[in-house]
Amino acid sequence: MNINIDLSKSGIDNEAIASRRMDSVAEYDRLGTGDIADTGWFNWPLRIEEDLLFEIKNAAEKIQSESEFFLVLGIGGSYMGAKAVLDLLAPSDAATKVLFAGINFSGRHYNEIFDIIGDSDYSICVISKSGSTAETKAAFAIAKEKLEEKYGPSEASARTYVISDLDSPLWNEGSEAGYTLFQMPPQVGGRYSVFTPVGLLPIAAGGVDIVRLIAGAGEVAEEFEAGSENTGPDCRLFDYAIARQAHYDRGKTIEVFEFFDPYFDYTGEWLKQLFGESEGKEGKGLFPASLIFSRDLHSMGQFLQQGTPCFFETMVTADRESVSVRIPESAGELYGGKSLDDINRCAVEGVKDAHIGAGVPVISITIPSIDTETVGGLLYWFCVQCAVSALLSGVNPFDQPGVEDYKSNMRKHISEL
Amino acid sequence: MNINIDLSKSGIDNEAIASRRMDSVAEYDRLGTGDIADTGWFNWPLRIEEDLLFEIKNAAEKIQSESEFFLVLGIGGSYMGAKAVLDLLAPSDAATKVLFAGINFSGRHYNEIFDIIGDSDYSICVISKSGSTAETKAAFAIAKEKLEEKYGPSEASARTYVISDLDSPLWNEGSEAGYTLFQMPPQVGGRYSVFTPVGLLPIAAGGVDIVRLIAGAGEVAEEFEAGSENTGPDCRLFDYAIARQAHYDRGKTIEVFEFFDPYFDYTGEWLKQLFGESEGKEGKGLFPASLIFSRDLHSMGQFLQQGTPCFFETMVTADRESVSVRIPESAGELYGGKSLDDINRCAVEGVKDAHIGAGVPVISITIPSIDTETVGGLLYWFCVQCAVSALLSGVNPFDQPGVEDYKSNMRKHISEL
Repeated sequence: MNINIDLSKSGIDNEAIASRRMDSVAEYDRLGTGDIADTGWFNWPLRIEEDLLFEIKNAAEKIQSESEFFLVLGIGGSYMGAKAVLDLLAPSDAATKVLFAGINFSGRHYNEIFDIIGDSDYSICVISKSGSTAETKAAFAIAKEKLEEKYGPSEASARTYVISDLDSPLWNEGSEAGYTLFQMPPQVGGRYSVFTPVGLLPIAAGGVDIVRLIAGAGEVAEEFEAGSENTGPDCRLFDYAIARQAHYDRGKTIEVFEFFDPYFDYTGEWLKQLFGESEGKEGKGLFPASLIFSRDLHSMGQFLQQGTPCFFETMVTADRESVSVRIPESAGELYGGKSLDDINRCAVEGVKDAHIGAGVPVISITIPSIDTETVGGLLYWFCVQCAVSALLSGVNPFDQPGVEDYKSNMRKHISEL
Repeated sequence: MNINIDLSKSGIDNEAIASRRMDSVAEYDRLGTGDIADTGWFNWPLRIEEDLLFEIKNAAEKIQSESEFFLVLGIGGSYMGAKAVLDLLAPSDAATKVLFAGINFSGRHYNEIFDIIGDSDYSICVISKSGSTAETKAAFAIAKEKLEEKYGPSEASARTYVISDLDSPLWNEGSEAGYTLFQMPPQVGGRYSVFTPVGLLPIAAGGVDIVRLIAGAGEVAEEFEAGSENTGPDCRLFDYAIARQAHYDRGKTIEVFEFFDPYFDYTGEWLKQLFGESEGKEGKGLFPASLIFSRDLHSMGQFLQQGTPCFFETMVTADRESVSVRIPESAGELYGGKSLDDINRCAVEGVKDAHIGAGVPVISITIPSIDTETVGGLLYWFCVQCAVSALLSGVNPFDQPGVEDYKSNMRKHISEL
């Protein structure tokens, strides 16, 4: 596998991990049997139809040919995966830049988005399973009005893309209005939907090769399938899931995801939703946090080194950076003439030495480089690890029974306005 | 005070808070006596000299008159406060846009920054206490080369601003080269430096009125000074500090700062450094996390509602938004015709109802609006609360003994390159 995991400094010894390996494979196997609801995402990269990929690529080409901006309206699982991938992989010279709105109730944010678009051509994409999400409804109403002002109703409809459940009110509205429609596959929760049209249409529109992304995810899916035929205690496929659950069982309350590249920022946000929403129920779960190094070494570094030992670290690093910049000699003897990339690698090693030296458990995940296949593989890998990990802790990774409360309370307050 | 704090749902009852009020005033009083090192920031907004403000404003006017971009090179406490304030307050039509670099070792990030600058005029600002920070040294070498290429050495020097300790190597280099120099006031740690030139020069260059910012901070400083003359058990000035320490003492491990406006993102980052670095030592401290709502309700909302009860929430909200946008009728009966701002306020109330209903302790901090004085007051308020809180827990809020470890390890690896 392209994803290398080092648990030697994880604080969980091999025996403890080995003791749960058979359980972990058993939990993995349940993902494919249909005895748990909402596992439609499982092995999806191996099952996605070429026709669908073709349709998405066609739509993306149309968007690129007529729009400088593609304004995606969706929140949570309806945008975080796409933004994570685009931040890492979108070419800087892409024909179309993808923007995201509907992620807050901030008038200032809407004004800024439409200032960026200015007089440029754009298309919009509304992503909502049910179509009833408050942020998305407000965003769509605002964007639709602007789009119709600019293009008239008919051309505006031709520039509107909808991704929703089949026969949702949003789907039916779109069908009537002549929007381009993509179906959310059934049995896929938002946080597991990055490889469905929810993620793929924005990702493709932003210039990333979705065939390669899916191929990378599919390769990891195949390796899980092949490897899990070994149901014995030496199947190491899910050691990460086991190690993090072991930390939870031993009283750690926080998993800190750490990246050494600012473009992983939204990968961290995506992971927070994936793990937080999958595990945080029944009074259980590790609180997921994410940090970007070296930036946050200068803010949270002190706490990590000497604060309350309530956390463990999961460091995700790439062996090779895509862009190399040489530091001029005026930086002085130690740094001058070296590449930022080399210095960054020394930062990784320096942080590992320091934190491990301070007794902090560190799980290291290394990928060879930030390329399309590897990123696809990494995201799918995390989906599977998260599902197995949550199942090991005895919760259902695929429901979110707690998210309705604030929504119904909010609607009550709105109805009283 | 412009800052309203509601502890009625904080999970800490009034008696528990009252029992530490005399202690809290005593700890506050120590800040002014000089018996703790590095309290140079204390009451600084009341002590800052008009001459210095005048000098900073003059420099900012020069920058605005000749530069479309002001590229600030600094990391941690050398930039987070300025970015927090600028994100909230910088006018969208400011003459000069402030950019930040030197916050990572990412070649791609440098390329993007210089792509944004393009052929525009710009000036640079190097901020480092000692001048030896690796990120800043690399950033300065890269930016200096570009600036000299564009303007030649003499004009480049006239466009270079340095903020550093008096007589640091960086200061002496700048003095020789004819850079514009501002001194870091002595006895002020980076995370407490937003009201010194470290924060004020970038903030002023970005078009924010620093006299108003300082006035707001000074007002809060005066209210602390006047109020703390009451050293008895009914002095409520530091109830927030007491309540959060009480949560720590009772086993909570995380304080989640929550904002209902995306432009508070970097206020959250600044708070993470302020509290994490001040408290996270000797195996103590609350792990600071920050979330932006409503965005993160769709990722972390499930965990907050039903996950491991290892945290309490500190919600910071503004009564009034500066920008109002009306939602068109097509959003449907519930949302159509209402303002985003009104909906956002209902989200605040809905979240409070839901989380408090689930037994989550919620501390509410409310400010009247996001204006310059109030933001200045809020940041100063947090500095004081953080210092008092850390002192209550028995640690020194002003040192950071753990941050050198990774740096020395990193330098060792670099010297072996």
